[in-house]
Amino acid sequence: MNGSIPNIVIGRLPIYLRELQRMAEEGRHITSSLELGERLGISAAQIRKDLSQFGEFGKQGTGYSIEFLMDNICKILKVDRVWDMVVVGAGDIGSAIARYQGFTNRGFRVGYIFDIDPKIIGTKVGEFIIQDFNSLVEILRKNHIKIGMIAVPGWAAQEVADRLVEGGVSAILNYAPINLNVPSNVRLQYIDPVIHLQRMTYYL
Amino acid sequence: MNGSIPNIVIGRLPIYLRELQRMAEEGRHITSSLELGERLGISAAQIRKDLSQFGEFGKQGTGYSIEFLMDNICKILKVDRVWDMVVVGAGDIGSAIARYQGFTNRGFRVGYIFDIDPKIIGTKVGEFIIQDFNSLVEILRKNHIKIGMIAVPGWAAQEVADRLVEGGVSAILNYAPINLNVPSNVRLQYIDPVIHLQRMTYYL
Repeated sequence: MNGSIPNIVIGRLPIYLRELQRMAEEGRHITSSLELGERLGISAAQIRKDLSQFGEFGKQGTGYSIEFLMDNICKILKVDRVWDMVVVGAGDIGSAIARYQGFTNRGFRVGYIFDIDPKIIGTKVGEFIIQDFNSLVEILRKNHIKIGMIAVPGWAAQEVADRLVEGGVSAILNYAPINLNVPSNVRLQYIDPVIHLQRMTYYL
Repeated sequence: MNGSIPNIVIGRLPIYLRELQRMAEEGRHITSSLELGERLGISAAQIRKDLSQFGEFGKQGTGYSIEFLMDNICKILKVDRVWDMVVVGAGDIGSAIARYQGFTNRGFRVGYIFDIDPKIIGTKVGEFIIQDFNSLVEILRKNHIKIGMIAVPGWAAQEVADRLVEGGVSAILNYAPINLNVPSNVRLQYIDPVIHLQRMTYYL
């Protein structure tokens, strides 16, 4: 199945899932592509088409069971389990990520946080003890961790990416404001607030 | 011009700009669509096509002047000036944003940070004194600030968005893990690490 579903469709599933979880928290049980579309600013037809790529999740006229649809999207995205992650960089951003409450119930958990600075290695960030960056590869391999987040300055980010890959990581979320090179079998996503801001100023 | 350039083209310009700035920092002066494409994983033809929508930035065979191209993209994206922004929410994420060094030289500056918690209003985050959320609208209007970042819990985010809009903000970057409703003349972008992570787990 992996090869046949367009990336852009996969990219929308987490948006659907987030809104469904919000509805579930509101105590709702049933929704429709129309309602979901209105809440997300996406056409109902697009949502039906995206979901139909994975099977039959609703009956004509009765809508979708929110719980059933959530369960299925979680399975498709493989977040019906909890993925351990590492954070590299224990500065402001890395510390905020390590303490972030928003991973809970969405398929992820921070397992370890690393830094290269001997002055902070061994100290605590939230409930985590900051680990030595030099033990990154070993800890990744021992714990079979597949996901890493980079929260170091731009100049250090490529080396961190290389070490993550060396340790077996195959999905990287990069907060450093720099484009990284990774092998083609490694997935890479970026979070750079300036990119998002510059996408808006054009219209101001 | 605004109506005629597709959003997706505008969305790629900040990526080009970031890479050009990186090349400039490396001391480089000339590049080509081929090199830029290789560094970014985008085809040279796509880059040439995107840039041609805004004019003639390079000569056949001699490539692009990095500085000239940067200047022009900055003008197009209106980041040839510095935009003041507000951050609402002085928790981990809001504090990390306020102290973030990555805005400098990229067109943005945090002007104020706000919170609703009387225990932290008046205390400092980096160089900023945390302002009372109840003075948000007034401060936005007085300073003609057009950009706001939301770093509050999900349940509080819609009210923050409403107040930002009331104060005249027309571009919002939302870090809260929730979809927001804003008037159609207000631009909205999201930063939610879980969305990015879930876009990768499908492929693991």
